Amino acid sequence: MPVGKIEVPRLNKVAGIRLATIEAAIRYPERKDLVLFALDNNARLSAVFTQNHFCAAPVLVCREHLKKAVPKYLIINTGNANAGTGDTGLQAAQAVCQALAEKTGVTAEQILPFSTGVTAEQLPVNRITDALDRLIEKLHEDGWNAAAEGIMTTDTVPKGASVSFDIDGEKVTITGISKGSGMIRPDMATMLSFIATDADIAKAELDKMLKTASDKSFNRITIDGDTSTNDSCVLMASCTGAKIDTDKGYDKFLLNLTELMQTLAQNMVRDAEGASKFISVKIGGGLDSAECLEAAYSIAHSPLVKAAFFASDPNWGRIMVALGNARIKNLDIRKINAWLGEVKILENGAMAADYTEAAGSQVMQKQEIAVQVDLGRGQAEETVWTSDLSHEYVTINADYRT
Amino acid sequence: MPVGKIEVPRLNKVAGIRLATIEAAIRYPERKDLVLFALDNNARLSAVFTQNHFCAAPVLVCREHLKKAVPKYLIINTGNANAGTGDTGLQAAQAVCQALAEKTGVTAEQILPFSTGVTAEQLPVNRITDALDRLIEKLHEDGWNAAAEGIMTTDTVPKGASVSFDIDGEKVTITGISKGSGMIRPDMATMLSFIATDADIAKAELDKMLKTASDKSFNRITIDGDTSTNDSCVLMASCTGAKIDTDKGYDKFLLNLTELMQTLAQNMVRDAEGASKFISVKIGGGLDSAECLEAAYSIAHSPLVKAAFFASDPNWGRIMVALGNARIKNLDIRKINAWLGEVKILENGAMAADYTEAAGSQVMQKQEIAVQVDLGRGQAEETVWTSDLSHEYVTINADYRT
Repeated sequence: MPVGKIEVPRLNKVAGIRLATIEAAIRYPERKDLVLFALDNNARLSAVFTQNHFCAAPVLVCREHLKKAVPKYLIINTGNANAGTGDTGLQAAQAVCQALAEKTGVTAEQILPFSTGVTAEQLPVNRITDALDRLIEKLHEDGWNAAAEGIMTTDTVPKGASVSFDIDGEKVTITGISKGSGMIRPDMATMLSFIATDADIAKAELDKMLKTASDKSFNRITIDGDTSTNDSCVLMASCTGAKIDTDKGYDKFLLNLTELMQTLAQNMVRDAEGASKFISVKIGGGLDSAECLEAAYSIAHSPLVKAAFFASDPNWGRIMVALGNARIKNLDIRKINAWLGEVKILENGAMAADYTEAAGSQVMQKQEIAVQVDLGRGQAEETVWTSDLSHEYVTINADYRT
Repeated sequence: MPVGKIEVPRLNKVAGIRLATIEAAIRYPERKDLVLFALDNNARLSAVFTQNHFCAAPVLVCREHLKKAVPKYLIINTGNANAGTGDTGLQAAQAVCQALAEKTGVTAEQILPFSTGVTAEQLPVNRITDALDRLIEKLHEDGWNAAAEGIMTTDTVPKGASVSFDIDGEKVTITGISKGSGMIRPDMATMLSFIATDADIAKAELDKMLKTASDKSFNRITIDGDTSTNDSCVLMASCTGAKIDTDKGYDKFLLNLTELMQTLAQNMVRDAEGASKFISVKIGGGLDSAECLEAAYSIAHSPLVKAAFFASDPNWGRIMVALGNARIKNLDIRKINAWLGEVKILENGAMAADYTEAAGSQVMQKQEIAVQVDLGRGQAEETVWTSDLSHEYVTINADYRT
């Protein structure tokens, strides 16, 4: 059960982008596990991938193909991550692309493969290639809600969002789906997100907007500090609609894109396995963004802080200690102030004079909790979102595979 | 219950160092909670402290006093960490030193205070000062085993070690005690260690040896990546015995000191709350020590890896993923080999050809598990020790204070 309500609205179609979702029994029967995206001729695409040194085979293939061609199809399977599979895994990902290329009349380089599921097992290529005819036949613009289900692994709810807005009187739509609980369980998790718009955006600007919006959304969530070998986020522009460039609509589009991606990212945290709390950590007053993030992640990654949230224990000493672990040079703790919700906990580096355990406790009972810290040394600020550390987390991650 | 057997031998006395341990009801009745060390006139002392920005009051006082005088007394209380207590806490630590100075005829600057216990509560100064007469009266060279108990908080066993060896025919003794489970629970934990020798060692060399030995022991253990506000490690040399300098006995002394401190450090990991496994992570083939440590801590801090150890699940994909998260530039995964115990898991960056789940599982059933990685790019190596992530860990840290 996710923390708070995750709304899965009827997702708007995006002109020029068709989707199909089927059951291919890749790991389990009777489960939507294969999704295909088809992009119209003029579409452009931007993608960002995991920073993990051990990239999975599909990520390596995606990077290679993106250097050589403009993508026409994206094929996504769940049930198997094709990670830690060496050269055999690489050949498997390429074989899927080759088979799809032959059936659709494009080159293999115009296809991007994505996989999520168990690691260190070889991809069952035939189950995918055998299903391609059925998949291609189902391609339709109105397939987003099914695709949101089709990319799920252990997610408890599908995750998707749509937004429409006007740019100089022309309607622009952005629709996106995502899966995974971020870095919580790379075995069966992986963060994948596919976002599309009908706007007409040049490749350079599409790249820039995806990078900027990712940095304020998917790159600001953490469950346990682990990244997956397969993390991928794709932004497609079918270019059938309004033209957007730095002179026209850029800021409005970026704002809408960022908000949509934040919703998708936050829904991953809300649906993180074992999560019982949704926690935002906002650090202000930093010299730069980097030190704000260092402080925010020191708090958001601390198992002690996360266990206190799980227990609804207003143990602000742990927040102080975690913050004290941040690698920030010349941090003057006497300039630090901090709040738990509206309750001041740290005043000039020591316990706030009017802090009471009762007030702290009231904040900690809530499902959604905001931690705010002012470092008192600059103007930069950053926010990250995380979950708590629960028994359920240990149960899932200790018992999951066995 | 600690992992494996923690032997608490009869600790050898160290000529020139006297100790006393009493019950002062600082937080709980009928519990040894106050310890005093008295150093002979010629003694020298070296100390290292927490790197946490929020140093506790006693740490600030220790640093100040060490600049001004050679210490004659160390006073350690449990039950209250005097951390997050602001100026009031600073005055409390100074008041304890002042009271002890008056009773012993030294200056307050010659006294070092240490505290461990709950944070964010003011130190009950009177309970300490009221007990000073009883404490001073009990000072005796043969007080090490009692002191090991006197500095415990939630430790399940006292931790101490002694070693005697010859330097050019003269017998040298080192005895040390420690408490805490490292960084596992800064509320009531804190790592404290007090080590003494009768050897005659100059201050500069004492400092150097403590730094070197700490870096290979206390600075190589991790439970959850959190450090405490009060962590302190002290090395005392009473200088009543054999003279040691860089020309005579230095290497032998350092080796014995390092081994003794490794025993104390490893016993903390074995006694970490909730620990059911003792895990060593050895990274070899690195370009330098820093990147070996980066890789080792990436594995040792990963909740997913630690949960797999708890479950005795040979989920080597998680070790690969955690290693892949290490911030090491230009890491070529095709040169990486890794072992779980004697079982090869990664060969040239992919699953080892002859790896079997059965072989991996056999290693994971054990209480003590060695992970070894060869980065294949240099000669540096480092080892860190850690514990697993268990339900007990969450229980203790979620329920501890409430």
